[in-house]
Amino acid sequence: MKTELLLKEIHERYRSFNEGKLANYIPELAKVNPNLFAISIVTTDGEVFEAGDSQQLFTMQSSSKPFTYAMALSAFGRDKVREKVGVEPTGTSFNSIVEIEANTHRPYNPMVNAGAITISSMLSPEKSLEKRREEMLKFFGSFAGHELSIDETIYQSERSTAFRNRSIANLLRHFQVINGEIDGSLDLYFSQCSIQVNTRDLATMAATLANGGVHPSKYKVIDRDTVSDVLSIMLSCGMYDTAGEWAYQVGFPAKSGVSGCIFGVIPGKMGIAVYSPLINEHGHSVRGVKALQDLSYELKLHIFR
Amino acid sequence: MKTELLLKEIHERYRSFNEGKLANYIPELAKVNPNLFAISIVTTDGEVFEAGDSQQLFTMQSSSKPFTYAMALSAFGRDKVREKVGVEPTGTSFNSIVEIEANTHRPYNPMVNAGAITISSMLSPEKSLEKRREEMLKFFGSFAGHELSIDETIYQSERSTAFRNRSIANLLRHFQVINGEIDGSLDLYFSQCSIQVNTRDLATMAATLANGGVHPSKYKVIDRDTVSDVLSIMLSCGMYDTAGEWAYQVGFPAKSGVSGCIFGVIPGKMGIAVYSPLINEHGHSVRGVKALQDLSYELKLHIFR
Amino acid sequence: MKTELLLKEIHERYRSFNEGKLANYIPELAKVNPNLFAISIVTTDGEVFEAGDSQQLFTMQSSSKPFTYAMALSAFGRDKVREKVGVEPTGTSFNSIVEIEANTHRPYNPMVNAGAITISSMLSPEKSLEKRREEMLKFFGSFAGHELSIDETIYQSERSTAFRNRSIANLLRHFQVINGEIDGSLDLYFSQCSIQVNTRDLATMAATLANGGVHPSKYKVIDRDTVSDVLSIMLSCGMYDTAGEWAYQVGFPAKSGVSGCIFGVIPGKMGIAVYSPLINEHGHSVRGVKALQDLSYELKLHIFR
Amino acid sequence: MKTELLLKEIHERYRSFNEGKLANYIPELAKVNPNLFAISIVTTDGEVFEAGDSQQLFTMQSSSKPFTYAMALSAFGRDKVREKVGVEPTGTSFNSIVEIEANTHRPYNPMVNAGAITISSMLSPEKSLEKRREEMLKFFGSFAGHELSIDETIYQSERSTAFRNRSIANLLRHFQVINGEIDGSLDLYFSQCSIQVNTRDLATMAATLANGGVHPSKYKVIDRDTVSDVLSIMLSCGMYDTAGEWAYQVGFPAKSGVSGCIFGVIPGKMGIAVYSPLINEHGHSVRGVKALQDLSYELKLHIFR
Repeated sequence: MKTELLLKEIHERYRSFNEGKLANYIPELAKVNPNLFAISIVTTDGEVFEAGDSQQLFTMQSSSKPFTYAMALSAFGRDKVREKVGVEPTGTSFNSIVEIEANTHRPYNPMVNAGAITISSMLSPEKSLEKRREEMLKFFGSFAGHELSIDETIYQSERSTAFRNRSIANLLRHFQVINGEIDGSLDLYFSQCSIQVNTRDLATMAATLANGGVHPSKYKVIDRDTVSDVLSIMLSCGMYDTAGEWAYQVGFPAKSGVSGCIFGVIPGKMGIAVYSPLINEHGHSVRGVKALQDLSYELKLHIFR
Repeated sequence: MKTELLLKEIHERYRSFNEGKLANYIPELAKVNPNLFAISIVTTDGEVFEAGDSQQLFTMQSSSKPFTYAMALSAFGRDKVREKVGVEPTGTSFNSIVEIEANTHRPYNPMVNAGAITISSMLSPEKSLEKRREEMLKFFGSFAGHELSIDETIYQSERSTAFRNRSIANLLRHFQVINGEIDGSLDLYFSQCSIQVNTRDLATMAATLANGGVHPSKYKVIDRDTVSDVLSIMLSCGMYDTAGEWAYQVGFPAKSGVSGCIFGVIPGKMGIAVYSPLINEHGHSVRGVKALQDLSYELKLHIFR
Repeated sequence: MKTELLLKEIHERYRSFNEGKLANYIPELAKVNPNLFAISIVTTDGEVFEAGDSQQLFTMQSSSKPFTYAMALSAFGRDKVREKVGVEPTGTSFNSIVEIEANTHRPYNPMVNAGAITISSMLSPEKSLEKRREEMLKFFGSFAGHELSIDETIYQSERSTAFRNRSIANLLRHFQVINGEIDGSLDLYFSQCSIQVNTRDLATMAATLANGGVHPSKYKVIDRDTVSDVLSIMLSCGMYDTAGEWAYQVGFPAKSGVSGCIFGVIPGKMGIAVYSPLINEHGHSVRGVKALQDLSYELKLHIFR
Repeated sequence: MKTELLLKEIHERYRSFNEGKLANYIPELAKVNPNLFAISIVTTDGEVFEAGDSQQLFTMQSSSKPFTYAMALSAFGRDKVREKVGVEPTGTSFNSIVEIEANTHRPYNPMVNAGAITISSMLSPEKSLEKRREEMLKFFGSFAGHELSIDETIYQSERSTAFRNRSIANLLRHFQVINGEIDGSLDLYFSQCSIQVNTRDLATMAATLANGGVHPSKYKVIDRDTVSDVLSIMLSCGMYDTAGEWAYQVGFPAKSGVSGCIFGVIPGKMGIAVYSPLINEHGHSVRGVKALQDLSYELKLHIFR
């Protein structure tokens, strides 16, 4: 009740707040209605609180990265995954081209594109794209509690303009961080970015992490240890070069996507998802950051507060 | 009881583990007995558990940084302090010379030397060194519960060999992050590094943070909000370029000093301090890291586990 | 006469000098006979002096870069070429991945791969690879004085393993330094690297530069101003991160190729080419560097000596 | 005659060209008359051509660096000097703080402050500042052909505000590139920057270099080999991050000072000095660069033209 009212209040507080820009690196994202704004909370018991356009679908973009990381950890174990991808933040990088460690050539962490593409390359590289997509959608769907699908228009658009990601993949292949061919793994990466969800889906996925890997309706999705590894990385690296700021001001693990979504995990309590497509210079939803800061403060969700 | 036994077991487990080297950047630190090894836990209720050389004094070195940061936050408030010093991790820096942000010229965070020296420069710069030391010792002493003192031999040694710190201070002065003269602020910084404690002292100081800024014997030292800011920074930046690894494997805020000490804070529960002078290439006590990893696992202290 | 003897003496001096390694980034280069060693001098009058295996063919690799740069300068003029590619050395880069300027995203200069690939992208991008190759071979051939050809085995090998170059090309495309498709331009770049010459050919090409753009047999190939621009870049950037050392010790414009060739230009006097496939950590022929140092000293070829 | 007229024409061409700013890093430099503009040419035979304020004194600043480098080379030989200071350009550095090589910790070259301060530290460190200054003034004076003196006001001003240089010196001391105390060496460095000359003096000093180390009035100052080393470094590193541009457009060794002076050396022919205190963002005199470009073009002074 109180939570429901608070969500509506916060939604009202920022709905006409118009800072930020639509992502324009692919044409489709720039066509979105900039006024869209949704907040959903799903508790570990499965209770749902919502405000705004919570049925509006959007593509996950980078908010998919914690889940493919979980998928790789579940399949190969922590040690094997860490051989390929590190766990350190990149720092306020002067030059965002460099996402790989100078000595090891490993990507810094699975939350930057280089890391996520490497994770993709580990997921059934011997199978067809169709099969790999199917496995991924099944895994993501078990977090959400229902089948998910890919926005093929966004997928095609990402695929045909992703020069930077193609540059990264070739560099990783050069350093033999990725072995074998890279085109299929890039296609899988573009696919994960193009998975469609609404805030209720995303908050449910977050609630599954908050619930130790068990879906609010009580079936197990991943191990508790995998959850702990995913949340640790989200806290230290999930918000890129504002990770320190985020830990300071908001204080719970979160991950944003350039489509305008952010989700947060409050262990033992709830998952939260916000969506609003106007983003700031760091790629985070402007209304989303505001809403999560206020929620952290008013619901006392900061891990150290 | 159980905790006591566990400490003794862990102490026994690593006491003859001889990896690492004595810090040699000042001659005094290189003369220490490499076999020293102590672990202390102090709960928020003031219960004490110990193993090993828990009466052995050592200098705080960088483990003093969270406390001077707390001192500045208490004196000036969060906003004023953040104008001078950032809150982001530096990343796995290829070049440890650079601890300041490219655009703002602010130090990345208060846990790197550049940040800590800037914090020192804010603490009563108009007063004499003697007076500034007195205020600092009083502040630190209120965390420990008794008066603390400075190891003057270490202080003099640090002071006369600190070319790198003098380089940093001059650069900060050049960029006007520090105003006024720098020698006094450097002297205060060397003083804070040279404060003597044993693991019981340091664990008590940590317990005061764990207890929301209230000493286990119930008197208030700092605000709850200041504690939250200090712990956030410790978690994201306290262990330098192994911060991500630490969050992943140990999962509670901690800070190490090159003398061989590390302290950790488990909010609402306890402070932990370890001391053992053999350090690894990151400047962390080798036995200390091992002990804290095991304690995190066996007492379930990871924030996400 | 004297020059002939000197060449033989220097050849003898270093022929059994076995430092360095065969380039192994493509399998074909690693199969070469490591004892091959040739020196050729061609004067601006067309006189030829030689020692060693001067009929041995090898691929030009990076020694082709000054000529494609000349080709672009001739076709588009200095201003248009400089919009795309800078003229500054990269410095002793800690990280050879970064060959583009932080602000403009232009490659530092046409002697690094990023610059040479950008130059390739300017050369008749609207035409077929076959046609583009034909134009390039004609241009290069006019420097050598006869038709040149491409080593198709090397070409195919470079093409199928060039992940780093593909990474660079995609990054340049991302920053719109290169427009249009990149595969054809990469293929043209691999083609230029695979052009076959012997030291007499390469020394003749160098002599054409030394002679102000006029082939020793008196026909004009390029403008005098283009020659000046090419030589300036070769002097400041031709020997990568040993450019300063080279200017200091040898003191004439030169360019090396990873196949083991180096050519130098002494304006108004002669072109020199050496070939010997054992290379050092900078990618320069070990015997080649030795021979050119001695020649500079004994024939007084340093521009400031 | 023709040269005299050309100088007057070029002087006239740029005298009312008002781009650039006065150096303001020390108050004294910001007080200078911005309209000052002088050009002097001194041939290796001692002929003098001048235009504008050629009697106006100014401080040498960084234009002193080639001469202290020559002083160290003369005293210790090439090998010993190169152990301490490299010969490579720094590249278009993103971050001008870093002037030392990552692995060796040596300064990149003697033309950047780190290199020049290291050179200072080699010059009679055991003697008093007075004695060291005396030796330096004698050496510089032998290039100019008469006694030179230090502007003590500028010297004091530099000395009291040189936080960046003090930072560099401490870092070099930390890495033991400089041994012993650093204050005296910094004072010597500030002294060399504060030596007063006019353009005729500076052109005479340049003519001595152009003349193989022999003053136009026929007495020997330094060895021919030392001259060659100095000119090589000036060409590759003398104009900082515009070194490539300079080699491309102007094409002779030069060195600028932030007071607004630039001198160039045309081996076997002449020395040129210009002075005009409005400088660009690279620290080069705006009118000076223009004048030298035109002189290079009209007198055909480019080494490759």
